[in-house]
Amino acid sequence: MRQKNFCAWGWADTAATRDEIRALEWAVGPMLGIKSFDVTPSPRPEEFKLRAPRLSAPASLAPLLSFDHNERLSHCYGQSFADLARVLARDCPNPPDAVAFPRNESDVAHILDFCANTGAVAIPYGGGTSVVGGIEAPPAADCAITIDLRQLNGMLEVDTVSRTARIQGGTRGPDIEQQLKPHGLTLRHFMQSWEFSTLGGWIATRSGGHFASLATHIDDVVESIRAVAPAGIYESRRLPASGAGPSPDRMLIGSEGILGVITEAWVRVHKQPVFRQSVSVRFADFIAGAAAVRAISQAGLYPANCRLLEAQEAAYTSTATQGALLVLSFESADHPVDAWMARALQLAAEAGGVWDAAELADKESHRGGAAGEWRAKFLRMPYFIEPLAARGIMATTFESAITWDRFNDFRENVIAATRRAVKEITGSEGSLTCRLTHIYADGPAPYFTLIAALDKRKMLEQYVEIKRAALDALVAHGGTVTHHHAVGREHRSQYDRQRPELFAQALRAAKRVFDPKAILNPGVLIDP
Amino acid sequence: MRQKNFCAWGWADTAATRDEIRALEWAVGPMLGIKSFDVTPSPRPEEFKLRAPRLSAPASLAPLLSFDHNERLSHCYGQSFADLARVLARDCPNPPDAVAFPRNESDVAHILDFCANTGAVAIPYGGGTSVVGGIEAPPAADCAITIDLRQLNGMLEVDTVSRTARIQGGTRGPDIEQQLKPHGLTLRHFMQSWEFSTLGGWIATRSGGHFASLATHIDDVVESIRAVAPAGIYESRRLPASGAGPSPDRMLIGSEGILGVITEAWVRVHKQPVFRQSVSVRFADFIAGAAAVRAISQAGLYPANCRLLEAQEAAYTSTATQGALLVLSFESADHPVDAWMARALQLAAEAGGVWDAAELADKESHRGGAAGEWRAKFLRMPYFIEPLAARGIMATTFESAITWDRFNDFRENVIAATRRAVKEITGSEGSLTCRLTHIYADGPAPYFTLIAALDKRKMLEQYVEIKRAALDALVAHGGTVTHHHAVGREHRSQYDRQRPELFAQALRAAKRVFDPKAILNPGVLIDP
Repeated sequence: MRQKNFCAWGWADTAATRDEIRALEWAVGPMLGIKSFDVTPSPRPEEFKLRAPRLSAPASLAPLLSFDHNERLSHCYGQSFADLARVLARDCPNPPDAVAFPRNESDVAHILDFCANTGAVAIPYGGGTSVVGGIEAPPAADCAITIDLRQLNGMLEVDTVSRTARIQGGTRGPDIEQQLKPHGLTLRHFMQSWEFSTLGGWIATRSGGHFASLATHIDDVVESIRAVAPAGIYESRRLPASGAGPSPDRMLIGSEGILGVITEAWVRVHKQPVFRQSVSVRFADFIAGAAAVRAISQAGLYPANCRLLEAQEAAYTSTATQGALLVLSFESADHPVDAWMARALQLAAEAGGVWDAAELADKESHRGGAAGEWRAKFLRMPYFIEPLAARGIMATTFESAITWDRFNDFRENVIAATRRAVKEITGSEGSLTCRLTHIYADGPAPYFTLIAALDKRKMLEQYVEIKRAALDALVAHGGTVTHHHAVGREHRSQYDRQRPELFAQALRAAKRVFDPKAILNPGVLIDP
Repeated sequence: MRQKNFCAWGWADTAATRDEIRALEWAVGPMLGIKSFDVTPSPRPEEFKLRAPRLSAPASLAPLLSFDHNERLSHCYGQSFADLARVLARDCPNPPDAVAFPRNESDVAHILDFCANTGAVAIPYGGGTSVVGGIEAPPAADCAITIDLRQLNGMLEVDTVSRTARIQGGTRGPDIEQQLKPHGLTLRHFMQSWEFSTLGGWIATRSGGHFASLATHIDDVVESIRAVAPAGIYESRRLPASGAGPSPDRMLIGSEGILGVITEAWVRVHKQPVFRQSVSVRFADFIAGAAAVRAISQAGLYPANCRLLEAQEAAYTSTATQGALLVLSFESADHPVDAWMARALQLAAEAGGVWDAAELADKESHRGGAAGEWRAKFLRMPYFIEPLAARGIMATTFESAITWDRFNDFRENVIAATRRAVKEITGSEGSLTCRLTHIYADGPAPYFTLIAALDKRKMLEQYVEIKRAALDALVAHGGTVTHHHAVGREHRSQYDRQRPELFAQALRAAKRVFDPKAILNPGVLIDP
């Protein structure tokens, strides 16, 4: 079986190459004023001394539980920079005591029963790609079992008439696409973690896909959900829409493993798009680009992609450009999208946008050109986080959503607060860029990428302090602490501030119903 | 002030005319085999003997509470056929003891405090147009106060940049449009009750607007909500989107007055559309029309209107036609919609649809033609329910949503079960038609209109029995008990069957948080 990187991003066999790392150093060194790099060697599993498991497997669960050193270690952390910093420090004081691999729902129920009876914490685990500390054992737990759902992997039904599919919660992105393909269908819910993350994980964390408009979040993709909670089975009815009471599914969507383990869902799928147009539009500056994005978002055109990149960001993920770059594309399985693209480009032109007619005319431009190049690099980027961290460089992202009327001020304030924190905490300037990833008629989802040189002796502390300043700014200036990265443990204090207090209490009350002994992912989203 | 009809639909000065009633008799008589009509006179308020109020107003609330006979009587019921049957029977055993007219949020809080302290039930009341028994006092209550929000009426802020507006919960449809108009904006959330129903009522009941696709429900229109609960103020953050935990607003949307009184919301508005195309497409039969609707719903074209009517239904709301009639329209404030309509018509043609090129060419066709005529009659129809009821004729509707793979069977089964019930219970045939009102890629929202002659001595019982058979069929065959009419008291037993049990328990737990003494609309959605 193909091996995943130990405690870092991705497949072991596609880790960053020597050439890529050299290119990274060349790009990042001058930017951060670093002349030579002190490289912490990548850790080996045997360098970690894990606490002995604090439980033994009862006979009935023995086939499902692994106490293997490497399994426990690789289920310790997600993919936040805080996780990498700890991995590089060979610091894993709080591993799960065991990793469970249920084969079916009944196994999930048995494991939850065992946890409820023994007081062990249960941590649902999909692809392990959380960047918010959503899948680690709380330090206070007496015992913790990670429930890895990789064996709940498969397509159970495909309904080609309604264009929906019933899929198991542990199914990863590529497996979903592979099993839909023979039906001419596709889920098209693509994000940076897509190779590794799972449908159940997407639902639990309200993931955002690559669609810039309409079904941006998994929320709108889900038709119904089945989950195993300590209190029993939750199953919602398969309905295109309903007006019967508050939506049951919306309580599970975004529940981050605190209510139940999502074992299956019916999701809405699409025919493979056959009509596509893609083009890169250049603007004098980000504000002009954002004005175009606002116009497009309010025009009812619904582009598949509408990413606005700053000059600086466009430069290191794509061919160099001045000002800001808008990656705009429309796609359809049903009809040519010329009229849609033409109108969007009129709106872009009104905001001063210019583009290359040849790129637009090239029907394969979505695979090449600036847009294509950008996409390939985008998917490759997570592999660079660990080599950067090994060089004392933090590369991290945070994201939000805000209404258009406040957007320009919001962006300025968040950038200023974050830059100030980087300067105060590290003593140097970092690089902070903003792009728009998803668009709504009433506002965009800005996405910030922060790169800074940290003190290698205190990377975790510095990261935590800088991130706190950035997230505080998001919430203080009216945004959400996350548009699609979820809350986990890293965003808790800001989430607590933005959430209506009565809703927090209601969520705690719902948790007591689903999970009376509070075994599921305690500390994520709410305290018991 | 313009007077509303006493206990029946609409304005007193636009009640059904003598000519309209004669036309109704001519249409319905032959259909139901009725040769002459026995007409129960419309009731007068003084014919009702109301129980004396079981409470007196404390000095602090005296200016807010009305004990007036007519106010109590007109707040007794909504607009369900069950309500009309009781009104015609001069049967009102359980009126609210008082009607409160809060002027602001603080008044709402005082009234809720008073109810919590005295054990009175509190019934939030918007436009009073519930067709599901959502606003009547439960018989078991010791005392009930209806909270009429008509004075929380107005536009508080308009954000023309983000195209959103902050509007008070008690604001009715026409007032919203009138106050948005000077800004060139419109909410465009139109439904049959639009003249009378309110923003807060729409949110509480998950109303459906006239848009056939995209933002069909108020759910997608709402940006944030403010509500007064017995336990305090609920206020969510104004965000275009968020991935931070389960959506707080989705718990309030559809809560039908059991969690709090919705006092304000930010909603997404639009520019007035200036580009419109509308056409009526005829099909050989409903199944062919539904195939076209499915193709259009899965094409990513998003028509503003896509109503499929049966021949019989089209005949009495529009110019006579054979087969089935699709009322199809596209609209935009931004761009001509020719490409959209052209592709939708290609899909319709593939399913055998034919249309009149002249109607399509007529840019004002949305105001006239079969579509325009249909709309005018649609908005007029509620005024005919009471004259029909006075003649012993039940005219009622119920609606659902179902995935496409099950739709044809669902429609057949629901029609068969309902017809069987009508025959068994009344001894005669009624008229039952189905139309599609809202469309989703994975399924349509079918809407059923039932007309039948009842025994005037037991109209209520017969209605309840027939409706039960119809609603049971909706749920037994996989649909939802309601797509946009809400649950109230009339749909409770079917709602209980379709809802995940763990969600029901969680909703009860949430209610205990928002409303610890269970004063708000008890018995609606859940039992305490």
